[in-house]
Amino acid sequence: MTFIRDADEPLLHGGELAAARRLFPCAPEPFLDLSTGINPISYPLPHLSSDLFARLPQGEALAALAAAAANAYDAPSAAHVVCAPGTQILLPLVAGLIGSGKAAVVTPTYGEHARAAALAGHRVAELTDIDPAPDTELVIVANPNNPDGRMFDKADLMALTKRLQAPNALLVVDEAFMDIGPPAASMANEVARGGILVLRSFGKFFGLAGLRLGFALAAPDVARRLRAQLGPWAVSGPALAIGTKALADRAWIEDTRRRLADGIARLDKILAAANLDIVGGTTLFRLVRAPAADLFDHLGRAGIFVRIFRENPTWVRFGQPAAEHDWARLQIAMAAFASKV
Amino acid sequence: MTFIRDADEPLLHGGELAAARRLFPCAPEPFLDLSTGINPISYPLPHLSSDLFARLPQGEALAALAAAAANAYDAPSAAHVVCAPGTQILLPLVAGLIGSGKAAVVTPTYGEHARAAALAGHRVAELTDIDPAPDTELVIVANPNNPDGRMFDKADLMALTKRLQAPNALLVVDEAFMDIGPPAASMANEVARGGILVLRSFGKFFGLAGLRLGFALAAPDVARRLRAQLGPWAVSGPALAIGTKALADRAWIEDTRRRLADGIARLDKILAAANLDIVGGTTLFRLVRAPAADLFDHLGRAGIFVRIFRENPTWVRFGQPAAEHDWARLQIAMAAFASKV
Repeated sequence: MTFIRDADEPLLHGGELAAARRLFPCAPEPFLDLSTGINPISYPLPHLSSDLFARLPQGEALAALAAAAANAYDAPSAAHVVCAPGTQILLPLVAGLIGSGKAAVVTPTYGEHARAAALAGHRVAELTDIDPAPDTELVIVANPNNPDGRMFDKADLMALTKRLQAPNALLVVDEAFMDIGPPAASMANEVARGGILVLRSFGKFFGLAGLRLGFALAAPDVARRLRAQLGPWAVSGPALAIGTKALADRAWIEDTRRRLADGIARLDKILAAANLDIVGGTTLFRLVRAPAADLFDHLGRAGIFVRIFRENPTWVRFGQPAAEHDWARLQIAMAAFASKV
Repeated sequence: MTFIRDADEPLLHGGELAAARRLFPCAPEPFLDLSTGINPISYPLPHLSSDLFARLPQGEALAALAAAAANAYDAPSAAHVVCAPGTQILLPLVAGLIGSGKAAVVTPTYGEHARAAALAGHRVAELTDIDPAPDTELVIVANPNNPDGRMFDKADLMALTKRLQAPNALLVVDEAFMDIGPPAASMANEVARGGILVLRSFGKFFGLAGLRLGFALAAPDVARRLRAQLGPWAVSGPALAIGTKALADRAWIEDTRRRLADGIARLDKILAAANLDIVGGTTLFRLVRAPAADLFDHLGRAGIFVRIFRENPTWVRFGQPAAEHDWARLQIAMAAFASKV
């Protein structure tokens, strides 16, 4: 059992360049931010008419986005889709779908899950596998998991939903990194049966984390309750337009999957050449075992920002660079690190 | 006492042009949307770098927005400011700050307040004045009120906070239309004492409702609890940048107040010339007493979309047009209506 000391206390995350600049004030600029698992090849921004910013987001545009998301994620229908300004803001609302009770989070994972469950009033257990007590009401698992890329078998997740005995038991599967995972592993097409809620992130794969767009996929009655919490205009006009276009852009999606696969192979080579053990990851990031504080410091001085973890001092997570000169910077810095150790 | 039949059921609102087009398929396009109280003279969009869309919203940019909002709204400090993707999404979270109990909403007003309080589990009473029972835990009042523009005395609101006897009693003042109201009427500079929470909308006055930006102003401990619910990236990168710039743009703000004041005087003349009784309003909208169904239908056929109210069949609300030809369209259509009646 974990005791969340203070669920109101903000957690640390990657992506805060100001923090990197404070730590490494003499590092060469621009900082290369590899501290997140966000695709560095962003979906090309379409022309955004000023109306998208000026008018209230339109109901028809929201319906079109939900339909595009249902199609892209293979959810049963748009009625099973809740559009939100990012999945983060959904976490306490999803945890709050169940009256406060017993929650379990499969860890180590994205820290906000346990915090959100605690905020919603649950007693939160941290498990190392998907084996919660049968009276657990809320089970949260990230698949693929962040930061280690661990994948859970769909059959095991389905079996888990049958083992849970609480009448309103809910399995939440955070598929934030499933866009680059094997599509057959997704639980998105299983949500109609109830008791399963899938979270999908738009910003990570499409490289548009600042836009704030994410989805919950769930049975229609659960989706309706979440929509009621969010209200009618939760998603911005620009996010409605960009999301609808991007989710339907199969060519870009396929091409990007290929480019990311090439990129991650290149990253693996750089990490291996530096004699680092790859713990796991997804196509968007790699987790390595390393003298984390030293490597973080070495790269930081070279203007490269990676993610280390308070909970594990041997872990370093690398996102992918995009530009050739960024790949070169990383390669040179890693080779220098390897020659020092 | 009101019984909210189903707080999950969406309410009707203005601003849905698709609804107008379905009702009036033969109306001349483009539709002139006067169905909201949103400023038609939008704040000019600055250049938005692609980084604002690509990167996670940065903590420093969020801090800068909170500081700009504290300054613009005269809140005690940035620690008293919660930045959100619109105030709408805050309503159930604010109502949920208090354990489910007795809530009172001063009505008639924006319908989402009673729905949000019901969603948070409160028993919701609708009052016609700010005279809740002393054991009421949550009191919600819009000042100026929408749709009738009714203003509540700051002294009366302050006295109310003293009359409430519940230990965690909270007075929520929705100041969505206070930007164009008398600044001295705002409760924003009173939030430090606790028990008072002020909602401020960005999109209405700045004419950027699609951007999704709004604020809660409250004592720091309450603000911290709301921030914990929203999580670290609730406000999009573009909203952080635009909001910070716009809230500090005193020249635009002053100029826009003047332009809106001129506009509303012009609207009043048109409404008076059509022999309509003005019930009230703010500088962003006017509420008139009229044969609402007839007037709605007459204007709809002319491609002008106004707001009517299920709860009162004699009310029609008009937003302001902006372009000269839109003013002309409205004037002609209103004169034709007056000559028919």
